[in-house]
Amino acid sequence: MTKCGLDLLLSLLERLFFFRLYLLYNHWLPQVLLYIFIILDLSLALFEEPAVIPLPSWATMLVELLCLLVFTLRLVHYARVIPQDKFWKDPKNICIIAIVALTLIDMIIYGALKASSYQAIRWTRVLRPLLLVNVTEGRQLRRAFRSIRNALPQIIYVFLLFLFSLLIFSLMALKLVGKRDLKTTGGAPYFSSYVDIIFDLYVLVTTANSPDVMMPAYNASSWFALFFIIYILINTYIFMSVFLAVVYNNYKKYLKEEIRQLVRAKRHKMVRAFAVLQERRKDTEEQVVSQANWNQLVRLVQPDIRNAHRELLWSVLDPQNQGCIGKVAFVQLADLLNIEVITLKSRPHPLRFIFPTLYLSVPSRLICRLVRHRTFVMVYDLIILVNAIFIGLDEDNPLIADSEWMFLSLYLLEILLKLYVFEPRAFFSRHNLWNWFDTIIVFSALIATVVNSAVKSFGLYGSHQILDIVLILRVLRLVRVVDSVQRFRTIINAMIRVGPAILTFGQLILVVYYIFAMVGMELFKGKIKYFGEGSDDPTKLFCGNVLLNGTSFAQLNYCKNNFNDILSSFILLVELTVVNQWHVLSSGFTFVTHVSARIFFVVFHIIVVIIIINIFVAFVLEAFFMEYSVEKSDLHTSVERKIEELQLSVAQEKLEDNLVNAMDSTEGNCDTAEDKPVLMFKIASKRYRTVDTLLQRMFEADLNLDDLAENDRIEADSSGNFANPAFGSV
Amino acid sequence: MTKCGLDLLLSLLERLFFFRLYLLYNHWLPQVLLYIFIILDLSLALFEEPAVIPLPSWATMLVELLCLLVFTLRLVHYARVIPQDKFWKDPKNICIIAIVALTLIDMIIYGALKASSYQAIRWTRVLRPLLLVNVTEGRQLRRAFRSIRNALPQIIYVFLLFLFSLLIFSLMALKLVGKRDLKTTGGAPYFSSYVDIIFDLYVLVTTANSPDVMMPAYNASSWFALFFIIYILINTYIFMSVFLAVVYNNYKKYLKEEIRQLVRAKRHKMVRAFAVLQERRKDTEEQVVSQANWNQLVRLVQPDIRNAHRELLWSVLDPQNQGCIGKVAFVQLADLLNIEVITLKSRPHPLRFIFPTLYLSVPSRLICRLVRHRTFVMVYDLIILVNAIFIGLDEDNPLIADSEWMFLSLYLLEILLKLYVFEPRAFFSRHNLWNWFDTIIVFSALIATVVNSAVKSFGLYGSHQILDIVLILRVLRLVRVVDSVQRFRTIINAMIRVGPAILTFGQLILVVYYIFAMVGMELFKGKIKYFGEGSDDPTKLFCGNVLLNGTSFAQLNYCKNNFNDILSSFILLVELTVVNQWHVLSSGFTFVTHVSARIFFVVFHIIVVIIIINIFVAFVLEAFFMEYSVEKSDLHTSVERKIEELQLSVAQEKLEDNLVNAMDSTEGNCDTAEDKPVLMFKIASKRYRTVDTLLQRMFEADLNLDDLAENDRIEADSSGNFANPAFGSV
Repeated sequence: MTKCGLDLLLSLLERLFFFRLYLLYNHWLPQVLLYIFIILDLSLALFEEPAVIPLPSWATMLVELLCLLVFTLRLVHYARVIPQDKFWKDPKNICIIAIVALTLIDMIIYGALKASSYQAIRWTRVLRPLLLVNVTEGRQLRRAFRSIRNALPQIIYVFLLFLFSLLIFSLMALKLVGKRDLKTTGGAPYFSSYVDIIFDLYVLVTTANSPDVMMPAYNASSWFALFFIIYILINTYIFMSVFLAVVYNNYKKYLKEEIRQLVRAKRHKMVRAFAVLQERRKDTEEQVVSQANWNQLVRLVQPDIRNAHRELLWSVLDPQNQGCIGKVAFVQLADLLNIEVITLKSRPHPLRFIFPTLYLSVPSRLICRLVRHRTFVMVYDLIILVNAIFIGLDEDNPLIADSEWMFLSLYLLEILLKLYVFEPRAFFSRHNLWNWFDTIIVFSALIATVVNSAVKSFGLYGSHQILDIVLILRVLRLVRVVDSVQRFRTIINAMIRVGPAILTFGQLILVVYYIFAMVGMELFKGKIKYFGEGSDDPTKLFCGNVLLNGTSFAQLNYCKNNFNDILSSFILLVELTVVNQWHVLSSGFTFVTHVSARIFFVVFHIIVVIIIINIFVAFVLEAFFMEYSVEKSDLHTSVERKIEELQLSVAQEKLEDNLVNAMDSTEGNCDTAEDKPVLMFKIASKRYRTVDTLLQRMFEADLNLDDLAENDRIEADSSGNFANPAFGSV
Repeated sequence: MTKCGLDLLLSLLERLFFFRLYLLYNHWLPQVLLYIFIILDLSLALFEEPAVIPLPSWATMLVELLCLLVFTLRLVHYARVIPQDKFWKDPKNICIIAIVALTLIDMIIYGALKASSYQAIRWTRVLRPLLLVNVTEGRQLRRAFRSIRNALPQIIYVFLLFLFSLLIFSLMALKLVGKRDLKTTGGAPYFSSYVDIIFDLYVLVTTANSPDVMMPAYNASSWFALFFIIYILINTYIFMSVFLAVVYNNYKKYLKEEIRQLVRAKRHKMVRAFAVLQERRKDTEEQVVSQANWNQLVRLVQPDIRNAHRELLWSVLDPQNQGCIGKVAFVQLADLLNIEVITLKSRPHPLRFIFPTLYLSVPSRLICRLVRHRTFVMVYDLIILVNAIFIGLDEDNPLIADSEWMFLSLYLLEILLKLYVFEPRAFFSRHNLWNWFDTIIVFSALIATVVNSAVKSFGLYGSHQILDIVLILRVLRLVRVVDSVQRFRTIINAMIRVGPAILTFGQLILVVYYIFAMVGMELFKGKIKYFGEGSDDPTKLFCGNVLLNGTSFAQLNYCKNNFNDILSSFILLVELTVVNQWHVLSSGFTFVTHVSARIFFVVFHIIVVIIIINIFVAFVLEAFFMEYSVEKSDLHTSVERKIEELQLSVAQEKLEDNLVNAMDSTEGNCDTAEDKPVLMFKIASKRYRTVDTLLQRMFEADLNLDDLAENDRIEADSSGNFANPAFGSV
């Protein structure tokens, strides 16, 4: 028995260690550190040849080695917390191993070639952004890429059809116009070679060369306009809409399927957790989970939850107050925790304790009433408008320069008054975004203005940057005026809610941009130079490359749009994404290299504009439609009903969509009577804790049907990628 | 009783006359005539000052008077067939009366002023396109306009927010850049006036001046690029997507509501028709309609329906074959008639009757088998590809010029062979669009080529037009190759099905363009001149207007983009719709008039690009989503089941999405045995007879719920705008 007891102890210790390791892996600190190292790895491009700030290659390679070490450690940690077979089956782990290995090989080859003074390329730099995709935390990004990959076959068929239409129209253009010896405005032969026509008409699909490409033919005969109008109708309007439709439809379809699997896996895990925590109820022989166990679980999963909030959730799950819940109720826990409940603690103002007589005196009460009056907001809206006019006027006028101090003190006064009237912790609560915005802007403006004046009075006139910041902050203060119009607030809140999804797309774009920037820099670095405004280099007019002499690229002064460092490359890629003039930009690079350089720009256009931007638009559309046609889920409704029942609800109109004045009259300020409940709840019905929750809500209608059937097939499940240690039974 | 009998006879005659009048009003001939006169009225702009082909103003005014007369007669006719109070309550009638009256007044004033040699403007010309909207037949167009009007409040709020963002960014740009004395590439001061910045940044939202507007600031400091990137992200990407979302969402919402009302009105009318036709059934005392009455009704409503088709429909409604149907079944008639059933009459080939031995001989059967073989299609696809290469080659080579005759005869041979093998009426049936396309293209090419050769051999080399037509037809023949790929066919069929909806938008665009062209012509006519390629006018380089000297409008050779006649105006408006370079185009017109002319172009952009094009995109999206996620309605399913039951179904894979080869093996050709049924059915499940049906299908899921409840409230209905004469009871 002792042997057995020792074994048990050892296995217990092992489990404990494993559990610790698991918790450490999911701790925020290593996750943040990992992202810092990824950013560091990506930003190495700033210092590597071609560099913004050149550093010797041994320095950057040393830092890169450090980054690789961190990634490897993190991966080893991951391999320890999940089963071996699952680790090796997961493509994301294989990807990271491959990236690390390839990078090491590349560094060795590069170092060897450099040492023997050969030309060498660090080609694994294009792999770096793939780390963002393949780390465990990049779930959203991986999902986006998977959706794109799955939608590709459909997109490709439409694209081929579009290409066919392009070829047919080009052939027609060649036959109709080619023989007429027309000239472009620049005197070049117009529509004479088939390949050039295809490129020109492809550019026309992006509308970038819209009337110009048509003008020579139109000048020759008005009938040719008909050809171009039909072309634009079919290829620009209909085909591009079809692209949006196909991308949107496929993206939605596959995303829905992924979310469905995710929800199913989540429920399976909950069912397994239930199996661990369950106990037999004495009277009915049912399998249940007691409130005590449930409380412990919730506290473990979400340590920062308020007791009152937890009790509210329990009372939703256990409406008859039996002290225990069955499987169906238990499984809802995860969704329940995702419903964001705002808890409002009705606290009296701290000044009331410190100076009770003063704070409750007649003048103080008058101030409170004034500040909470509608007129107060209107007066400040008026002040903002006057301020806008003053900003617009010439600031060299000393009267106007001094007025800035007046406005600053007025805004400061407003914040101080509000802090006097409203309870500070409620004023700065997580949901009062406008208050945060206001305070940050006003205080930053105060600091920047003071610094600026100080610099000025010392006679140092060189600091443009500080003045620019002051000016931007000054203008940003005006933004607050939109908050006064209810309809604007609704739209802005909808936009803010789309935010997290936009962040995922930001990463997606970053990955694609980084890869194209790396390739572009290898292809085009140094071919086009920018000499700065003050330079008197004779080659300045044609960007330091004779081949560009007289081209519209040089004439339009586009020299700074080049691939000479990562920052310029990114800005150029943004310009190419906006599409306008991309034919001029790409022609610049084809002039200095070879006509096949067009391929780079066309591929960029197809990937970024036709696929990724369309997915972005699709996502904004979908999120907005959901905003417009939102129906609360059953769970939402039952939580809300429970809040109503308990009479802990905050009046709807007080909070809804009003981020600044949310707490105005429910907080314990100088006027409020003491007979209100201490804690109140409000469901932030339209906000979502995570992107996953937003996605789940978007496709909820299609998900609910097959859930109940799924619940019984527990053992068949193997889709979860993490086997929880059964610590409940230890 | 005689008096009473006479009264009855009179009332009967009156009713008969009324019924005739009603039938005449709905006859296709007056409807087509009306549209011809509307087109005539609209095309008067070609002949009025500023004219494409100038005519004296008395001639155009005489034609216009004739048109007005026709419109008035049509309106009087309409007033006779619908009740007085309904006629005067309907805004569309009031609109037509107002248009006619205003036009008359305008013509009198214009005539009087002209007679006394004053300057006069025919301002009612802008009202003309409104006739298209307000005639009884313009239902789709009115609905589109109503949807836009209803969506306006929402759009306006987003637009105001967008405007606010524009103003804030402009103010920031003024403060940041305004003081730096930067110059544009042209040497003009950059970002120095607030109004100009607002306009420039508005143009940037359309991306038309994308990198150019940024370059001076970017050249001064790379940090400014960040400002523009944030601006583009917020205003171009997010706001424009939000516009699409809002327009789409509102358009869909109001359209759905309209379709709901329409369906309800339709069902009410059907219930009333039932009340007229009903008779009491002897055994069950139910109110029913007998098959004889129903047949009569169907024959009256749709005279061209086949007997077999009608019987099929009856057997769907009366599955137990009782000889009569109840109210619920009767009400479905309208929807049933809207299900497009393709009837395939299995007829033997006519040659089989004329030359039976020859047609059934061994070589003839061999030909049939060859033509119907897969290889036949592949061989012709190969021929098309070779033809494409030959077209691409230089046609001055006599060998290649002669090869054209060979290809023509090959295509002709193909059609003749197919006509030999397949039954001609089936080959040219209404659903075989590709066969029609093929035959028309090949025969037109044949005729045009012959004419062209004839003209050439007579030594008349002037006819470019015929050669152009030959060339276009030659290239269009290549289009047929897409039909061989199943996936392409699916996409193209989806596009064709969106066609009717696109036609409605064509009218919508026509109305808006016409109004803007009229206003534009009054504002800008003659200010910018185009002198033609051969002209040696000294002012040619600046479009005949010194004010344009040196502007990019003149440099880019945009002189032909002017408002000097209605055709040029339309082409210019298309260019403005495509958006690119619209700031250059509009700046041309502001240079020759006044800076406030920008308002015209900005208003055009807001109305056409932000609202109408977005609705177009929304409609294409919606129609495509429906294509992808189509589910058959119950009625569809029951008709299909009935066809299956009766064993009259055509094999699915034979017909589905294949428009060319649809009838290949089911038709009575030389190989087919005689034991097949004479008539077969196939539901064209995804095609819709009318736009209304398409719309009803789009929103069907939301419509079905409240129909049954509606059916009993017959008498309360007053939404139908036409009281049917109860001729059934006469």
